[in-house]
Amino acid sequence: MSPERPRYAFLGPEGTFTEAALRRVADEEGSEFVPAASVISALAAVRAGEVDRAMVPIENSVEGGVSATLDDIALGDELQILAEVLVPISFVLVGRSGVTGLGDVRRITTHPHAWAQVRGWAEATLPAAEFTPASSTAAGARLLLEGAAFDAAVCAPLVAEQTGLPVLAERVEDVTGAVTRFVLVSRPGSLPAPTGSDKTTLTVPLPNDHPGALREILDQFATRGVNLSRIESRPTGTGLGQYFFSIDLEGHLAEERVGAALAALHRIFPGVRFLGSYPRAEHRAAVVAPHTSDEAYRAGREWVEGLRGR
Amino acid sequence: MSPERPRYAFLGPEGTFTEAALRRVADEEGSEFVPAASVISALAAVRAGEVDRAMVPIENSVEGGVSATLDDIALGDELQILAEVLVPISFVLVGRSGVTGLGDVRRITTHPHAWAQVRGWAEATLPAAEFTPASSTAAGARLLLEGAAFDAAVCAPLVAEQTGLPVLAERVEDVTGAVTRFVLVSRPGSLPAPTGSDKTTLTVPLPNDHPGALREILDQFATRGVNLSRIESRPTGTGLGQYFFSIDLEGHLAEERVGAALAALHRIFPGVRFLGSYPRAEHRAAVVAPHTSDEAYRAGREWVEGLRGR
Amino acid sequence: MSPERPRYAFLGPEGTFTEAALRRVADEEGSEFVPAASVISALAAVRAGEVDRAMVPIENSVEGGVSATLDDIALGDELQILAEVLVPISFVLVGRSGVTGLGDVRRITTHPHAWAQVRGWAEATLPAAEFTPASSTAAGARLLLEGAAFDAAVCAPLVAEQTGLPVLAERVEDVTGAVTRFVLVSRPGSLPAPTGSDKTTLTVPLPNDHPGALREILDQFATRGVNLSRIESRPTGTGLGQYFFSIDLEGHLAEERVGAALAALHRIFPGVRFLGSYPRAEHRAAVVAPHTSDEAYRAGREWVEGLRGR
Amino acid sequence: MSPERPRYAFLGPEGTFTEAALRRVADEEGSEFVPAASVISALAAVRAGEVDRAMVPIENSVEGGVSATLDDIALGDELQILAEVLVPISFVLVGRSGVTGLGDVRRITTHPHAWAQVRGWAEATLPAAEFTPASSTAAGARLLLEGAAFDAAVCAPLVAEQTGLPVLAERVEDVTGAVTRFVLVSRPGSLPAPTGSDKTTLTVPLPNDHPGALREILDQFATRGVNLSRIESRPTGTGLGQYFFSIDLEGHLAEERVGAALAALHRIFPGVRFLGSYPRAEHRAAVVAPHTSDEAYRAGREWVEGLRGR
Repeated sequence: MSPERPRYAFLGPEGTFTEAALRRVADEEGSEFVPAASVISALAAVRAGEVDRAMVPIENSVEGGVSATLDDIALGDELQILAEVLVPISFVLVGRSGVTGLGDVRRITTHPHAWAQVRGWAEATLPAAEFTPASSTAAGARLLLEGAAFDAAVCAPLVAEQTGLPVLAERVEDVTGAVTRFVLVSRPGSLPAPTGSDKTTLTVPLPNDHPGALREILDQFATRGVNLSRIESRPTGTGLGQYFFSIDLEGHLAEERVGAALAALHRIFPGVRFLGSYPRAEHRAAVVAPHTSDEAYRAGREWVEGLRGR
Repeated sequence: MSPERPRYAFLGPEGTFTEAALRRVADEEGSEFVPAASVISALAAVRAGEVDRAMVPIENSVEGGVSATLDDIALGDELQILAEVLVPISFVLVGRSGVTGLGDVRRITTHPHAWAQVRGWAEATLPAAEFTPASSTAAGARLLLEGAAFDAAVCAPLVAEQTGLPVLAERVEDVTGAVTRFVLVSRPGSLPAPTGSDKTTLTVPLPNDHPGALREILDQFATRGVNLSRIESRPTGTGLGQYFFSIDLEGHLAEERVGAALAALHRIFPGVRFLGSYPRAEHRAAVVAPHTSDEAYRAGREWVEGLRGR
Repeated sequence: MSPERPRYAFLGPEGTFTEAALRRVADEEGSEFVPAASVISALAAVRAGEVDRAMVPIENSVEGGVSATLDDIALGDELQILAEVLVPISFVLVGRSGVTGLGDVRRITTHPHAWAQVRGWAEATLPAAEFTPASSTAAGARLLLEGAAFDAAVCAPLVAEQTGLPVLAERVEDVTGAVTRFVLVSRPGSLPAPTGSDKTTLTVPLPNDHPGALREILDQFATRGVNLSRIESRPTGTGLGQYFFSIDLEGHLAEERVGAALAALHRIFPGVRFLGSYPRAEHRAAVVAPHTSDEAYRAGREWVEGLRGR
Repeated sequence: MSPERPRYAFLGPEGTFTEAALRRVADEEGSEFVPAASVISALAAVRAGEVDRAMVPIENSVEGGVSATLDDIALGDELQILAEVLVPISFVLVGRSGVTGLGDVRRITTHPHAWAQVRGWAEATLPAAEFTPASSTAAGARLLLEGAAFDAAVCAPLVAEQTGLPVLAERVEDVTGAVTRFVLVSRPGSLPAPTGSDKTTLTVPLPNDHPGALREILDQFATRGVNLSRIESRPTGTGLGQYFFSIDLEGHLAEERVGAALAALHRIFPGVRFLGSYPRAEHRAAVVAPHTSDEAYRAGREWVEGLRGR
């Protein structure tokens, strides 16, 4: 990483929840923030060496996995997750200059995903308002500054702060408590040190001709005492019924049981991809059964080595 | 169902792939086609009794599950799948009146999902063109008729046919062979008769405090000889790590092994939801091992009943 | 069963632990006790209708399963277990008339199995004594009455009581706390009513060409919440590596989860044999998880029937 | 092992099937054969260093596991199996001097296990004959030489050969094709080299408070592609329901998948005991799935090590 002034791409433009996530791990003063037009271009900038790292959303508690991120890190050139950040998702409605109350709002713009999360509120509060999709929540808000034919935009609080647009309503999301998980990604390199509360991310392509493959994957983890915190299927893009699994497991590659489970998966599903071991955002200490501790693993291996060597 | 002239909602407007799917199972002459603004409003129209049935997309071989459909049929009032239809997805680029070749194209509109599927072609062929999202592929194309400031739109071949807009390029999709699966949905009622090549769709909420739940679900199917053709995780919307599984299995509820597996799931996960048994689009005959046939199930049950009754 | 005076065979002669077990469930006054020369002839007498029931040992906490019983009830004509009895196994050393102390003991007789259980004591206490096998512990003791060339015999306390032979030493067994389990067997008929603390006995032949069969048997029980209290392999007698499994499970055939598991086994391993449901000797109440209760089973089945019938 | 003249204990006396098994692997000229009174004393002689090796029976295709051997090698001081030998079991009836035909036979002696295997023949052919147990088949036969009050004895053909006693009937066993498996045992030391067709023997004590333990054992083997050729439960002698499992698996400890499975068992069930890896008597080449080959194991491990080290 450029030592003096690291460069970070993020899903832009300025003011997105992704920028809010990035601000949690990087200092804008000492680094350079580079907005990207899409998750894919943010990740491409990392791969091309144009930036050192990228912050992208990977999972939302309401909408589910972010397909672009899941698919690109699974299928494109190899990358590595260094950290995760959880950001509570709350939306505000900002108005253009001259719009002073909800009564003036006729035309609203925002990203379709954001619209999906506020639609109940909008239909109840502004039943006559008309929705037009924007390419991002921040881009929608900025259209108000440029005199486009919209009265209001749904966006992140950070955008209101950065643009100074008036806030017409706060917390307009239909489901409160929504959270988005973001990941900080770099080119493959050395792993963050284990902290005792870590997570490891993998993808496993599911062989087409192997109906029991998912059960076999789960068996490999279960027999080694490895718990999964997320498992999602994603299409490989090569036909209906062709999937890979995106998996988060509790533990760090440096731990014996995690290394053993990954080695087993590699043996059975050689296309498995390791996407990083990094500290959990929740800092919840992992519970490891005594018979799956590093010590138990080492004792088992030493016993076998002793028998072999006698 | 209204006997004389059934009403069908579909994800509109006219010309969508969804309408193409609907035309495979319904005759426009003898029925009424009602375009809906969204998957959610199409399904709401069924629930409200405004239409008899709705055709909606559920899974795309490139993009994966259609979240709106998966979530709404899993979490809203109960519905039932009557049939599935597979439609190959191929896009055309249509121009507005006066645009006669690719050289004239500066501004393109289409639905963001369609854009994602043609971006590689667009960047290679029309590197300077600017993209603006539309609410559907058909809606984007119709903007060209209304004199909006776009030169071209990416849409389904059916739209070009219906509107007469000139086709500037065919098969512009980046991945050939993409297929979307659509389902025909009604209010709950009697099941289509078994055909020997059927599919059953379920959703199973995953208890939060039960790390082995997914393995347990798979075990219930595996021990009864029931194969799964699709399994997808979806967030319940109530927090990160809260999932339900959307599952397609091979077989019809009328079959013994399917009924036994569903009864077992209901016992363990009482929130399981049955979403229909219906003929497979592929008409591939199911392979049932002798020890999981209806006959084997009946013989086992009769043996136990004989012992109990003696 | 002969109503006025039931006939019971037992592994004789008089004074065996088997007779002690029989006395726990039958009254000698109101019934007829018929000693048999072997387990096999006791069971044959039941099958032939010569007696109503037979008491035979099935398992010893030191020696393991009683092969003759396990094999005969698994492979011979069908029988049914009505009850189980646990008898603590403790041996005495009795002397022939004229032998007044351990110092006089030169030649000892008893059944080889009993000898195996007292050998440590005998070698420590009577190192010079010579052992000769007898056909049963009681038969060995009775030889002392007939003036055979033995000084002492190892036998059950009941024999000392019945014969009046002097007891030279008590509790001479090497392992204290040994217990033998006996079963009361009849021809197949109606089952004892469930008590809430029952056991069911089965045998399952293991198909030769099916390496995962044992795991499949266990899966069928585990997925239905049925616990096993004993599982033993026995050869079928037709070649090395040809086994059947003798299984005791917790619960009564009248219970839903037990019936379901047996029906499943019958479907996969049609040679499964049901050997009875009967009260547990320990009267330990069964722990049944809520999702495997009769109520949960019925609710699951009714749900499926409701869906099928709508 | 004493280089010039190795000493072998065997379950005696001379003429047993065990001696026949020993003759298959050792040359009487160049070594010393030491008959032992019991399996336990043969194994004790090895442990005490009085002999170099012992040949003992471990499993019979009709009678099942030989409890004395299974229990002693599982629970006594550690030993190691070096080889296995299969011997077909066939009995002859030999007569004492002066008995010239079956018509003269009134009293028969033999070991009770042998008697169990010829009883059908004896009851059909000599219904009036009376049986008295002997401590071994060979000992019973030798009683005829000493003028005991028996007319005939059931024994191995080798005894007839060694003693010259007249054979009254051959192949008198009820079940033809019976086979006994014998093992050659030494103190723990270096392992026989892998041959590509090997077997490994283990014992695993089953924790009392862990109802799923057997399933867990099987899972550890299944997930690593290790097949079992024998699994038998045996009581530990400490109470009803207290078992250990005696297991033969296909493969050699030097193989990756076997070593990995043993290390895993040791981790979960630290009481597991390794009893040797040795060539299979059947010389049937093991079938190893590609994803469980040594190569696949090494590739998986190297992948993980590469990730850890980068």
